[in-house]
Amino acid sequence: MVLGIDIGGTNIKFGIVDANYSNVKSYSIPTPTDKGDVYLVEQIINKVHEIKKEYDFDRIGIGTPGRINSEEGIVIRASNLPYKNTPIVKMLENEFHLPVKLANDATCAIYGEFYAGFGQKYDNFIMITLGTGVGGGIVLNNKIYMGKNGNAGEIGHIIIKYDGLQCPCGQIGCYEQYASVTALIRQTKTAIENNPDSLLAKSAGYKISGRTAFDAMKKGCPVAAKVVDDYINYIAIGIKSLVRIFQPDAIVLGGAISNEGDNLLLPLREKVTMPVEILISNLKNDAGVLGAASAASQIEGLK
Amino acid sequence: MVLGIDIGGTNIKFGIVDANYSNVKSYSIPTPTDKGDVYLVEQIINKVHEIKKEYDFDRIGIGTPGRINSEEGIVIRASNLPYKNTPIVKMLENEFHLPVKLANDATCAIYGEFYAGFGQKYDNFIMITLGTGVGGGIVLNNKIYMGKNGNAGEIGHIIIKYDGLQCPCGQIGCYEQYASVTALIRQTKTAIENNPDSLLAKSAGYKISGRTAFDAMKKGCPVAAKVVDDYINYIAIGIKSLVRIFQPDAIVLGGAISNEGDNLLLPLREKVTMPVEILISNLKNDAGVLGAASAASQIEGLK
Repeated sequence: MVLGIDIGGTNIKFGIVDANYSNVKSYSIPTPTDKGDVYLVEQIINKVHEIKKEYDFDRIGIGTPGRINSEEGIVIRASNLPYKNTPIVKMLENEFHLPVKLANDATCAIYGEFYAGFGQKYDNFIMITLGTGVGGGIVLNNKIYMGKNGNAGEIGHIIIKYDGLQCPCGQIGCYEQYASVTALIRQTKTAIENNPDSLLAKSAGYKISGRTAFDAMKKGCPVAAKVVDDYINYIAIGIKSLVRIFQPDAIVLGGAISNEGDNLLLPLREKVTMPVEILISNLKNDAGVLGAASAASQIEGLK
Repeated sequence: MVLGIDIGGTNIKFGIVDANYSNVKSYSIPTPTDKGDVYLVEQIINKVHEIKKEYDFDRIGIGTPGRINSEEGIVIRASNLPYKNTPIVKMLENEFHLPVKLANDATCAIYGEFYAGFGQKYDNFIMITLGTGVGGGIVLNNKIYMGKNGNAGEIGHIIIKYDGLQCPCGQIGCYEQYASVTALIRQTKTAIENNPDSLLAKSAGYKISGRTAFDAMKKGCPVAAKVVDDYINYIAIGIKSLVRIFQPDAIVLGGAISNEGDNLLLPLREKVTMPVEILISNLKNDAGVLGAASAASQIEGLK
C-alpha cells in the first residue's frame, strides 16, 4: 500500500492506495498557508502519523503545485503556498523511515492516469489538464514520455496564435492563454462587461469562476453559450494539433473544467472530428492522491 | 546492398546503399510525367535492370510523393505525377523477384535521418522537412514513432494561428501555410508587389522560388532581408511548440530551404533560444535515396 499526498492551495488530501491503484481510504486537512513551510510540513506529518495507525503503507508519494527539484526532494516555490526550498522529502523520510517521492502536479496527473486511469486501456494517449494553466502528459508505446530533461508534455505552451496573447512564459499565443480555467474566467468577465444585461451578467456572483459561464449557459443564456462555445473551440485547436502530431489512441481531459462532463465533451468531439477518442479522466477527485501514489511507484527498487 | 529509388517530379534518382547506409553509387533519369503510370514504372524497371548488371542488391526501397497504400504497395495519386492506384511494388517484385518496400517521402525522410543521419547521434529528435509542404518525423527513445495509423508527425498541420490562413487540409492557420517553401514564395511575391522598386523586385526573375528572397538578401536588399526574417520567425514558432511538447535532443531540418545553411540556421537558433540542438540534415541530395533504402530495412524478415 502507498500513501498518496496531494497538496493543494485549499486542502491537503491523503489517500491509501492499494496495489490495484484503487483509493481505499481518503483523508483531508485544510492547507495552512500562512504559518510558513515548516508548519505546513508538520501538519502533514501529524496527519500521516494518524493514518499510519490505521494502515500499513510502505512508501509515500507527494504531489504539489509549483517548482520542484524532484531528485533532491525539494519544493522550490509555489504560488499561494509557503514553500522556500522546502526539503519535504527528507523531512518525511526522517520521520517515517520510508521511501518518499515528490512530483509536481502535472507529472502526478499523467502518472495517475497511466497507472490508475485510461493508461490501462490505451497505449498511446495525451493527457490535457485544464486547470489554472494547461498541463499535459504524453504516453507513447505504453510508456510515459518525459523528454531529455523531464519537462516534456508542456501542452499549455504550444503556440496557437503567434500574434495573440502574451504568456508569462515569454512566448506569445500559448494554448493556455486560451484554454485554461484562467482564460475562461477572463473570457467570461469580458462577456459580462460587454453584455451587462445578459443572464450571464445578472446571475454571475461576485466571484467569477470557470463554472460561471457553463452555469448561465445551462439556464439558457445565449451570451454564456457563446462564451462556452468559443472556449471549447480553443480547446479543440490544441487537440487538433496534438492529433496531427501524435495520432494517439485517445486524448484524456482532466482538471477542473473536465467536471463539466458532457457539456464539455460532446461539443468538443463535434469540433475535433478526427479519428481519436476524446475522454474525460474518470479519476475525478481521486486524481491527485492516485497521481501522487503512482509517482511513488517510480521509486528505485520498488515495483 | 539495397537499391533506393527516389521518385520526384523532375527526376527519378537511384542509389546503391550499403550496410552502413552510405550511398555507393547514384543514377538518375528524367521523370516521364505525360505518358501514364505504366510507362513511368517501365522506365524505372529498365533503369533497375541496368543497375542490376553492376550491383547485386537484395531489396528495393521506393520513396514517392503523394498518397500511398504502403501495405498494398500502391501509389494512389500524386500532384504532377501520373499515378492511378499504381501497384508499383507488385510490378517491381514480378520483374526482379526481390522484396520491395514503398513509403511516402515524409516517411522516407525520417527513415533516412534515423538510419543514415543524425539518428546515429540522437535518441530523441524531431525532423522538420521544409519543402512544398512541411513534413515531419518523430524519433523518441531511439525509435521512429508513427502513431496508431502510421500518420504521426504531421508537423505541418500544427495550428500556429487559429484565425490565420486557410489550409487545404481543412484547418485554419496550419504551420505549413507559413513555413513551407510554398509559403515563402507567396511571402516573397507579396513583398515584390508591395515594393516594386526594391532590389528584390528588380533581381527576381520570371519565376519566384524559395531562393529568390534569400538571394536578394545576400545582395543587401532590406526588403528581402525582412521577408527572410519573417519567414524564419514562422519556422521558429513551430519549433518552439515542438520543444515544449517533446524536449527533444535535437530538431533536424531537411527539405529545399535547408540548403540555405547558416543563412537559415544561425538566425533560427537566435530566435528559438531553447535548450535544444537545431541542425540541418547532412544527407543533402542523397536524402531521398537513403530514405527509400532505409524504408526497405523495414521489410519483414530482413535486417
